[in-house]
Amino acid sequence: MANADWGGHSGSRLGLDIGGTLAKLVFFESEVCPSWCTGRFAEVIKGLGKSKSENPASADYGFSRQGSFWGEQENELCFYDEELQGYFHFLCFRSEQMERFVSLIAAQELHHDIDEIFTTGGGAYKYAALFSEHLGITLKPVDELGVVVKGISWLLKRPISDEVCWLGEEENRTNKTFESECHFIDSSTNHLFPFILVNIGSGVSIVRVDGTDKFERVSGSALGGGTFWGLCNLLCPDCKDFSEASCKAVDGDSSSLNLTVEDIYGGDYELEGGRKLPGSLVASFFAKAGRGGNLHDDAALLHALITMVSQNICQIAFLNSRIQGVTKIVFTGNFLRQNQVARQVIATNMRRVTATSQQGKQLQALFLQHEGYFGALGSFLHNVEGDMKRVPTCQRLPTFLGKLSGRSPKMAERSAFQPIEFIFQRFQRCIRCFGNKKAHQTRKSTDTSAEKFTSVPFPKESGHQPIAREHAV
Amino acid sequence: MANADWGGHSGSRLGLDIGGTLAKLVFFESEVCPSWCTGRFAEVIKGLGKSKSENPASADYGFSRQGSFWGEQENELCFYDEELQGYFHFLCFRSEQMERFVSLIAAQELHHDIDEIFTTGGGAYKYAALFSEHLGITLKPVDELGVVVKGISWLLKRPISDEVCWLGEEENRTNKTFESECHFIDSSTNHLFPFILVNIGSGVSIVRVDGTDKFERVSGSALGGGTFWGLCNLLCPDCKDFSEASCKAVDGDSSSLNLTVEDIYGGDYELEGGRKLPGSLVASFFAKAGRGGNLHDDAALLHALITMVSQNICQIAFLNSRIQGVTKIVFTGNFLRQNQVARQVIATNMRRVTATSQQGKQLQALFLQHEGYFGALGSFLHNVEGDMKRVPTCQRLPTFLGKLSGRSPKMAERSAFQPIEFIFQRFQRCIRCFGNKKAHQTRKSTDTSAEKFTSVPFPKESGHQPIAREHAV
Repeated sequence: MANADWGGHSGSRLGLDIGGTLAKLVFFESEVCPSWCTGRFAEVIKGLGKSKSENPASADYGFSRQGSFWGEQENELCFYDEELQGYFHFLCFRSEQMERFVSLIAAQELHHDIDEIFTTGGGAYKYAALFSEHLGITLKPVDELGVVVKGISWLLKRPISDEVCWLGEEENRTNKTFESECHFIDSSTNHLFPFILVNIGSGVSIVRVDGTDKFERVSGSALGGGTFWGLCNLLCPDCKDFSEASCKAVDGDSSSLNLTVEDIYGGDYELEGGRKLPGSLVASFFAKAGRGGNLHDDAALLHALITMVSQNICQIAFLNSRIQGVTKIVFTGNFLRQNQVARQVIATNMRRVTATSQQGKQLQALFLQHEGYFGALGSFLHNVEGDMKRVPTCQRLPTFLGKLSGRSPKMAERSAFQPIEFIFQRFQRCIRCFGNKKAHQTRKSTDTSAEKFTSVPFPKESGHQPIAREHAV
Repeated sequence: MANADWGGHSGSRLGLDIGGTLAKLVFFESEVCPSWCTGRFAEVIKGLGKSKSENPASADYGFSRQGSFWGEQENELCFYDEELQGYFHFLCFRSEQMERFVSLIAAQELHHDIDEIFTTGGGAYKYAALFSEHLGITLKPVDELGVVVKGISWLLKRPISDEVCWLGEEENRTNKTFESECHFIDSSTNHLFPFILVNIGSGVSIVRVDGTDKFERVSGSALGGGTFWGLCNLLCPDCKDFSEASCKAVDGDSSSLNLTVEDIYGGDYELEGGRKLPGSLVASFFAKAGRGGNLHDDAALLHALITMVSQNICQIAFLNSRIQGVTKIVFTGNFLRQNQVARQVIATNMRRVTATSQQGKQLQALFLQHEGYFGALGSFLHNVEGDMKRVPTCQRLPTFLGKLSGRSPKMAERSAFQPIEFIFQRFQRCIRCFGNKKAHQTRKSTDTSAEKFTSVPFPKESGHQPIAREHAV
């Protein structure tokens, strides 16, 4: 394993999450002693985000932006880790393209140093034979929800700013960018636990998270991102790309499709006890399409579809948060990626139900910038941990282990067996780059309060009576 | 008011519920001293269910089965009331056809004896001017949820069998009729209160019902019957009729559209703690349609649409029942009418979540045979009550009032001012007819236990901690 600089093989630099619709990949590109293989890996993976003309190798295998679900490389999520001296790259493509991906790896001979990869998502089972037969790589499945929680917990403990945000009021949808409505909070000094995690992939998982190792799936929904994309394909067949679809939706007007309370009652609907359903509230999604004359533009259809899926998820999350007695609700998953309408619908509806709540409990919808990649990030951490344990000490180079504490490699080796959340605890700063390696900017200095996350006693919300958790639907 | 035989005007024989998509009408046809007007009314209304060739009058106004949402007259719901000596007829048509309906009433001169009608649904506001200008009739709005609860409470207290049922296991969907899977319960000897009412019209209202006059809307959803019909129109434009759509869906196979747990994981998905998500469970509705090759037949699309809407409603109902600590969930609304797939999906999913519940609480999904007409029935009861109070005593004929107690008309008059639930308490038997007037069969003799409904103290479920109710989404 010539020039291995992080554990024993380049598989430990990868994190894979192969979902029902999308495969998500995290890759760490080290600038320190790169092996031939990891350098080649980085070169190919970074190239996947480029156009065909820029990257003929990927074009041969059909990894074009138009041909994929979400696009490929997420340059705006890439960040440079000054202490690890390397870049974290984020990439996704449609899971059904896995054969092409495997062919690309084989053709570029990137697999020779990899014998196993911890992988999450159903694809860890589904594509196990494909990886084994064509690449000689064993996909080792890891629990999907566990790695998402692991990935979130790890990233939130890093001193990264601009990761967790809530959305402000929507004043003028068409003239405001998402960025201007986003209020980032310093998660390193806020105790997020306990929270309800709503992970929106093809389907939706709802998880109560009390700590990195203390979580439980309490509910879910089959009406998720896959539903949106499936119905989008049926209703707007010209729309080939999720990114295109979510951008088009921003300018859509779904009032020709959705039946509002005002359409039925001529205004607000007064409930018993003086409460009101506002006239602008959607009473029935798509109900106006049942009246014939179905000449709706794609933007209206897409806006209505995203609104339906997002508002429904918001409601199920809200009901579960009440059952669990938890007020912080964290929404993640690739459905939210570049999906301004979805985020805004969730934020607006959460505010509305909080405002009309008789109990007056403040529920907070929170969003994470790396929303779709926590499964892959958690798998990456598994690979690093697994690699630490598996590779003989003699093969571990001091370039990585030495960073852990400044102690001797032998001392450092022991600490490598601690849970991953402690491994990076002493790294001082993390610098993001937005697609530009040279634009290093120090965002935040060391904040030792990050350690608080592990010492929070996971208090229950006072005044709530949590009902015993069950798997819902 | 020549020959008036029930109160002062034929409006008191009507119940109207004008929803966002459908208008529902209940009409009582008395066999005792029918006035010219009520006889004509019955003749026209009964004729609406016939084909154009049988009923040229209705054909002129476009009330054809194909042109309507649900068909028109529901012969199988019609029942004969032996004590009232008359028939209850049930009819529905699309709300947007209201102008045609009003024109029909005007052309047939059926409105001369009617000055006001208690009406529920948004149409009571929306079409008020139409009724006033063309017919001189005032539509008096009554609270929508209140009349539904009123209608249910009234019908359940009548000694009618075969009204409330639960569905058994689905053994062989294609070879079994709905009727054979339906297990009727004798609601007159069972205490239904408290229950969660899930009323599925265009949208969905979720109401906690503790008694006839004790109820509260606790939640709702905009993903309801209107959503199904709207998406049906967009995806299956050749499908012109709800009845046709729901029948087609029975033979549909949505496995080419819905992504199951097995599709992702190759089998069951094991959760922490040993619980499992079964492989057959849908993980993402319509997700397979996102993979291109969208040549799906109407039956598959309709099955997938109904499954999506029904399963989602079931989940929201389940979550609300947990929050409220109530185990009986009654599903009503015209979306369920002739909709075998919807009922079965709800019943199956409710069984599943009950089986996987860690608390082991038995949740029961119940269905009512007159599911879509309780709003109209409640409005009818309002009209009867209102008429009793409004019409001078001298104009009330003994033919109806005398039935109340066998007492003198003056004595009977006093009892007419009692709440409607007491008015019919002493009627002995009620006989249903299924589209055949002659087929009178005594289903049940008097059961005085029906009175228990009003004396039930609405006990809370033990072991639950009901959270204060809020309006949800």
